[in-house]
Amino acid sequence: MTSPVCPAPVVSERVEMLHGAGGRRAHSLIETVFRSAFSSPETESVLDGTCHDSAVLPWDSARVAVTTDSYVVTPLFFPGGDIGRLAVLGTLNDLAMVGARPVALTAGFVLEEGLPISILRSVVESMASAARERGVSVVAGDTKVVERGQADGLFITTTGVGAPATEVVFSPARIQAGDAVIVSGDLGRHGMAVLAAREGFGFEGVGDSDLAALWPAVSAVLGEAEHVAVLRDLTRGGLGAVLNELSEQGRVQIDVEEHAIAVSEPVSAACELLGLDPLYVANEGRFVAIVRADAVERVLRALRGCAVSSQSTVIGSVTAAECEPGVTLRSRLGTRRPVDWLGAEQLPRIC
Amino acid sequence: MTSPVCPAPVVSERVEMLHGAGGRRAHSLIETVFRSAFSSPETESVLDGTCHDSAVLPWDSARVAVTTDSYVVTPLFFPGGDIGRLAVLGTLNDLAMVGARPVALTAGFVLEEGLPISILRSVVESMASAARERGVSVVAGDTKVVERGQADGLFITTTGVGAPATEVVFSPARIQAGDAVIVSGDLGRHGMAVLAAREGFGFEGVGDSDLAALWPAVSAVLGEAEHVAVLRDLTRGGLGAVLNELSEQGRVQIDVEEHAIAVSEPVSAACELLGLDPLYVANEGRFVAIVRADAVERVLRALRGCAVSSQSTVIGSVTAAECEPGVTLRSRLGTRRPVDWLGAEQLPRIC
Repeated sequence: MTSPVCPAPVVSERVEMLHGAGGRRAHSLIETVFRSAFSSPETESVLDGTCHDSAVLPWDSARVAVTTDSYVVTPLFFPGGDIGRLAVLGTLNDLAMVGARPVALTAGFVLEEGLPISILRSVVESMASAARERGVSVVAGDTKVVERGQADGLFITTTGVGAPATEVVFSPARIQAGDAVIVSGDLGRHGMAVLAAREGFGFEGVGDSDLAALWPAVSAVLGEAEHVAVLRDLTRGGLGAVLNELSEQGRVQIDVEEHAIAVSEPVSAACELLGLDPLYVANEGRFVAIVRADAVERVLRALRGCAVSSQSTVIGSVTAAECEPGVTLRSRLGTRRPVDWLGAEQLPRIC
Repeated sequence: MTSPVCPAPVVSERVEMLHGAGGRRAHSLIETVFRSAFSSPETESVLDGTCHDSAVLPWDSARVAVTTDSYVVTPLFFPGGDIGRLAVLGTLNDLAMVGARPVALTAGFVLEEGLPISILRSVVESMASAARERGVSVVAGDTKVVERGQADGLFITTTGVGAPATEVVFSPARIQAGDAVIVSGDLGRHGMAVLAAREGFGFEGVGDSDLAALWPAVSAVLGEAEHVAVLRDLTRGGLGAVLNELSEQGRVQIDVEEHAIAVSEPVSAACELLGLDPLYVANEGRFVAIVRADAVERVLRALRGCAVSSQSTVIGSVTAAECEPGVTLRSRLGTRRPVDWLGAEQLPRIC
């Protein structure tokens, strides 16, 4: 068999070390995979053909919110999402938690030599589509390539830049005895969707990740911002870790009711089978809001008006810490047990 | 032999999967390694104990500059720097290239299970010290852990946030025939320092990386900003790649003189031995400035007044592109040859 002599394609089928070396091949990867996906009339008007590594954005707020997350989820694709969509929405959700409207994103990629370009392209297109949905531009980025076996496919680090939309500075220090603890929906769907995809268990039943943008829900309650102590998304470590953090940071006791915490039947069954507690399983479209008791009804009404938080409910309340701050759960049987940090340490590479 | 029973240390000797799982151990790693290094009176006043993943910065400019780079340099430590210092200065240098004063940084870490905590601590302390030197706060961050063999020690992605200090929007589109091409110093020291450390060649003689902050040099020429077309740092791909980019983006011809381009004797000798062209070797403390001919003397005087750019010199000039834009080099013997992109593709994982 002889092969016809043909010119090497500018973008090959797989990521090569040369794609990270700053020359023509790096340039062609950026042009054909990244720029074509991320460019939009908004981005182009912002970047104005300056071709720099830095983007300069017009700004009309007296504050800038900024946050960073690295994403190493495995597998790269899971029911209800993929690492690209997660890297966009997850980071924008961190902005939402401080009441900041998302404006722009940057993205840093570490690619493993040999990664099929088709996979990279799917991930990048998913990022671009998630950013477009949220009205956000990806304004700057970087790509590095490491040798085969030195990264697991690809890692993405995104940074979100947002404009604070409220004067209120949400903080655990604002939590007071008597406050209500609201959770925006059922728990554990992201973690279980990723785990099911990773391990190839037969629980299709657990359904899709809850991965979703939280800004619509947050912007709906900003009218009540002065009555909101703090918002926190329930990602790594789940509700259990977040309540422990808030109790420790706010120096308060938090007591929650098991019967009020929604977990879908299939997620609950899968957790039981695997010995996991859904309280500690990661979510990517759920958050907790700690609010003044007299504003609870108005906040709930606002949250329930948004699809992403339509199942919001009060799950517990805050009391003064007697000696050490802590978290307790009253079971369906009426017994009360401490909720500690330990259970949070169960699922690696879930985001 | 029996071991005494002692309590497990909160931070172990090596990075474990649990350090990335969002529970108590993740929390303790953040507190003992990251927060202690990155906290400063400035950071604390900005973050104000809010304990969020997002930082909210006061802002008094009508524009925000933002840039991201991922760092995968190997080895992690090299003469004249390490991945941490590089991740701070490299990203701030991208801000400097658009005339933006650096204000804040975020950092995302991907850590390999088994990485000695002492190495992580050295890298983080080096980042903190570089940020302090530059008067910049590390305001937000994230840490993920991946299994042994799924990352090469650690990767860092930093995002820089800066305040533009000039109304001028530097851009290759501003390049005009007749402009002068200035380079801020000798070439190739970063790439050769990393390569010497990586391969264990016996060229201690190549000396330290040129890794340095470029903002002092840039701020010194901002008084002449209207006469500056564009600035570009000479990182991956070196001067060769950057001149090709600028010529292509600006649709101009760029001609440079070999005799004007400084390369130290040991770097030159090491490049010759390895078959590398110093024109394409990465730098981390060098940049090119393309400036109007009648402002050259003033710009050179300003640059030479700064330590980092004290050896600035004119290496060539811009002419109108006859048909296709391109770059040529006139050798010491007087012959002229094209400088193409290809040579840029020679050194992986240099930053």
